[in-house]
Amino acid sequence: MLKNDLILRTLAGLATERPPVWMMRQAGRYLPEYRKLREKYSFFERVQTPALAAEITLQPIDQLGVDAAILFSDILVVLQAMGLEVQLLENTGPVLPDPVRSEADAKRVYVPDVEDALSYVFDAIRLTKQELNGLVPLIGFAGAPWTLLCYMVDGKGSKTFDLTKSFCYCQPELAHRLLQRLTDTSINYLLQQVKAGADVVQLFDSWGGLLGPEDFEIFSMQYMRKIIEALKGEVPVILFAKGAWHSLASMAATGVSCIGVDWCIRPGMAREMAGSQVVLQGNFDPARLLTPKPELKKQITRMLNAFGPGKHIANLGHGILQNVPVDHAKLFVDTVKNHVYQNSFEKSSL
Amino acid sequence: MLKNDLILRTLAGLATERPPVWMMRQAGRYLPEYRKLREKYSFFERVQTPALAAEITLQPIDQLGVDAAILFSDILVVLQAMGLEVQLLENTGPVLPDPVRSEADAKRVYVPDVEDALSYVFDAIRLTKQELNGLVPLIGFAGAPWTLLCYMVDGKGSKTFDLTKSFCYCQPELAHRLLQRLTDTSINYLLQQVKAGADVVQLFDSWGGLLGPEDFEIFSMQYMRKIIEALKGEVPVILFAKGAWHSLASMAATGVSCIGVDWCIRPGMAREMAGSQVVLQGNFDPARLLTPKPELKKQITRMLNAFGPGKHIANLGHGILQNVPVDHAKLFVDTVKNHVYQNSFEKSSL
Repeated sequence: MLKNDLILRTLAGLATERPPVWMMRQAGRYLPEYRKLREKYSFFERVQTPALAAEITLQPIDQLGVDAAILFSDILVVLQAMGLEVQLLENTGPVLPDPVRSEADAKRVYVPDVEDALSYVFDAIRLTKQELNGLVPLIGFAGAPWTLLCYMVDGKGSKTFDLTKSFCYCQPELAHRLLQRLTDTSINYLLQQVKAGADVVQLFDSWGGLLGPEDFEIFSMQYMRKIIEALKGEVPVILFAKGAWHSLASMAATGVSCIGVDWCIRPGMAREMAGSQVVLQGNFDPARLLTPKPELKKQITRMLNAFGPGKHIANLGHGILQNVPVDHAKLFVDTVKNHVYQNSFEKSSL
Repeated sequence: MLKNDLILRTLAGLATERPPVWMMRQAGRYLPEYRKLREKYSFFERVQTPALAAEITLQPIDQLGVDAAILFSDILVVLQAMGLEVQLLENTGPVLPDPVRSEADAKRVYVPDVEDALSYVFDAIRLTKQELNGLVPLIGFAGAPWTLLCYMVDGKGSKTFDLTKSFCYCQPELAHRLLQRLTDTSINYLLQQVKAGADVVQLFDSWGGLLGPEDFEIFSMQYMRKIIEALKGEVPVILFAKGAWHSLASMAATGVSCIGVDWCIRPGMAREMAGSQVVLQGNFDPARLLTPKPELKKQITRMLNAFGPGKHIANLGHGILQNVPVDHAKLFVDTVKNHVYQNSFEKSSL
C-alpha cells in the first residue's frame, strides 16, 4: 500500500538498504511556501483548517524528499481541548493568559472528548493520508504530559520552567492529578490519530531534560510509560525526551520502538545506554545545518558513520531552525540517501 | 591563617570531617540585604564599587554560614574590559548594543591591560580578604571563553545561542581568533585575582552544554584547558561546564582540582565518568530549594549520600534562584554541616 515504507521497516527492526530520514519541524518557517501561507492565515487557522494543515504537511515531502510526513500541528492543541486558552504570538511563542497554579485553577482543566474537541486534527490526518496516496508514511504526535504541564503552569516558554518545577515540589498531589488528566487525554488523542490514519506516532518531551533523573521518573517518565503501554499493538512509537540522556535505559525498557536523541550525546554512548534492540533517531545539531555545504556534508557523514548501519532514523537532534537555507536541509536528506557506511573500525572510533 | 580551610583541604584531596558547602550565586537577589542595596545602586555600580562588592560578598557568610565566599561580580566585566559596551537591565539580563558578528566588528575587541581595566575587581578582592579576616577562603571566577563569546555574538541571553553557533560554523577562523583573545584576557584576569588574594578560582562555562561533544572540544574545552594550564601551581581551579556531562573524562584529564556538575546527572554516574581522583562539586537542583522543608531536607541528604564521603563540595547544580526563602538556603547549608553518611550499600544504590 505504501510506496516508501522504509521508516516502518526500520521501526519494525528489519534490516534496510539505508536509514530513513526526516526532520523535526520539517513543515515550517524555513520553507518559503510555508511563509506565504503564514502571511495569509494565523497560526491556529493553519493548525485548525484541515486543508491548510494537510498542505503544509506535504510541503517538505515535495521539497526535500523525506521518507516520512509529520502532521503540521502543535502540542498545545491538547491544552485547548482540555479547557485552557492558548494564544500563539508569531515570533514570541505560546502564551496562556490564565495559567494553572492552584486547586481552583485546576477545576478548569478536564479530560475532553477528544474525538469531538480535536476533530480538525483527525480530519487533517485523513485528508493528508488521502493526498499522500501512499507516497510515504504519516507520523502523528503529542506532547508528553510533563512538557504540557510546563506550559499549563508557567503559562509561556521558559529556559528553566521553575514555576512548574516549584508547583510540582510544593503541590505534588495536584501536579500528579493534572499529569494523569494529561495522560488520559493524550492516550485518547493518539489512539484517535491512529484510527484516522497515522502510521507512527512521536511523543515529544521537549522539557524532560530540565528535570533531574529522579524527578524525570516521577513527573515525566511514569506517565509516558502509560502512554506507550496504551499504544502497544497499534503503531510504532518514537519517544523523544530532549536532554534526558540519563534515562535512555529506562526509556528502552518501556519497549518503545524508537528513542530520539539530541546532539549532546555521542551516538556510540546513546547506543550503549539504550541497548542494542531499540531504534535510535537523531541526532544532528540543528544549528550545524547553518554550516557551509562542504563541511556540512562531512558532518552529516560523520554522524551517519557514528550511528552505523541499521536501527537508525536520520534526523536532527531538535527542530529545524527557521533560518536554515532550504538547500542545506536538502543536502541533509540527500547525504543520508546517498551514504555508504565506512568499515566497522571507523564506526567504533566515533 | 584561615580559620576555616575545609574547602582548601578538600580541593587538595585530603580527607575531611565533612564536605564543605557554598552555593553558586549565594551573594544575590534571594537575600533581603542584597535587595536593599539593589534599590540604591545600579548593577554595575554594585560590581564596580569595591566597598559594595565586598559587602555583598560577605552577606551570605554571615547569613548562611557557608564555607567559602565567592566574589560578587559578573562574568561580563571581561567583555567591557575588552572594549565592548555591556548593559545590564534589571530583570531582563545583559544586553550588548553592538554585538560582534564580522571581521569589522572584531576590530573593536582587544586584549586589555586587565590590571588597569579591571582594577576595581582586584580592589574588591583585597578589601573582601581584609574584611573576611581569615574567616573562610575567597573564590574568584571568570566566564569560560565560549560562554563569553555567546554574549559577544548573540548580544543577549538566549535559549540556544544559535547566532553564536552559526558564527562559529560559518567563520571558524574569526571565532577562534576571538576565543584566543578571550583566553589570553581570562588568564591574565584570573592570575591578577590570585595576586589580589583569591584562594580558589572557578571557571563558569554556563553555555558549554549547548554544544555537541565534538564542538565542545573545538570551541570551548581547548581554551579552558589553556586557562587551567596557566593556573597550575597558583590556586585550585574549579571547572563548571553546565550540561557538558559528556566531557567529564576530558575535563578530569586536564588535572583540574574540581569539576562542578549540574543536577541532570546522578552523582554515581558523574563519579564514574570523571574518575576517582578529581573532586566533584554540586549538584542540587536549584528549583528543588523551593520544596517544603521536611522533604527538602530528605532530598539534600539523598544527594550527600549519593556523592558519599570525600572528594565532594556540596553546592547547587546552578545558581540559586531569586525566589528561594533564606531559611531554605540555610537548611541546605545546615543539612550538609550536620550530615552523617549512610553505609556504602545505601551509597551504591543511589
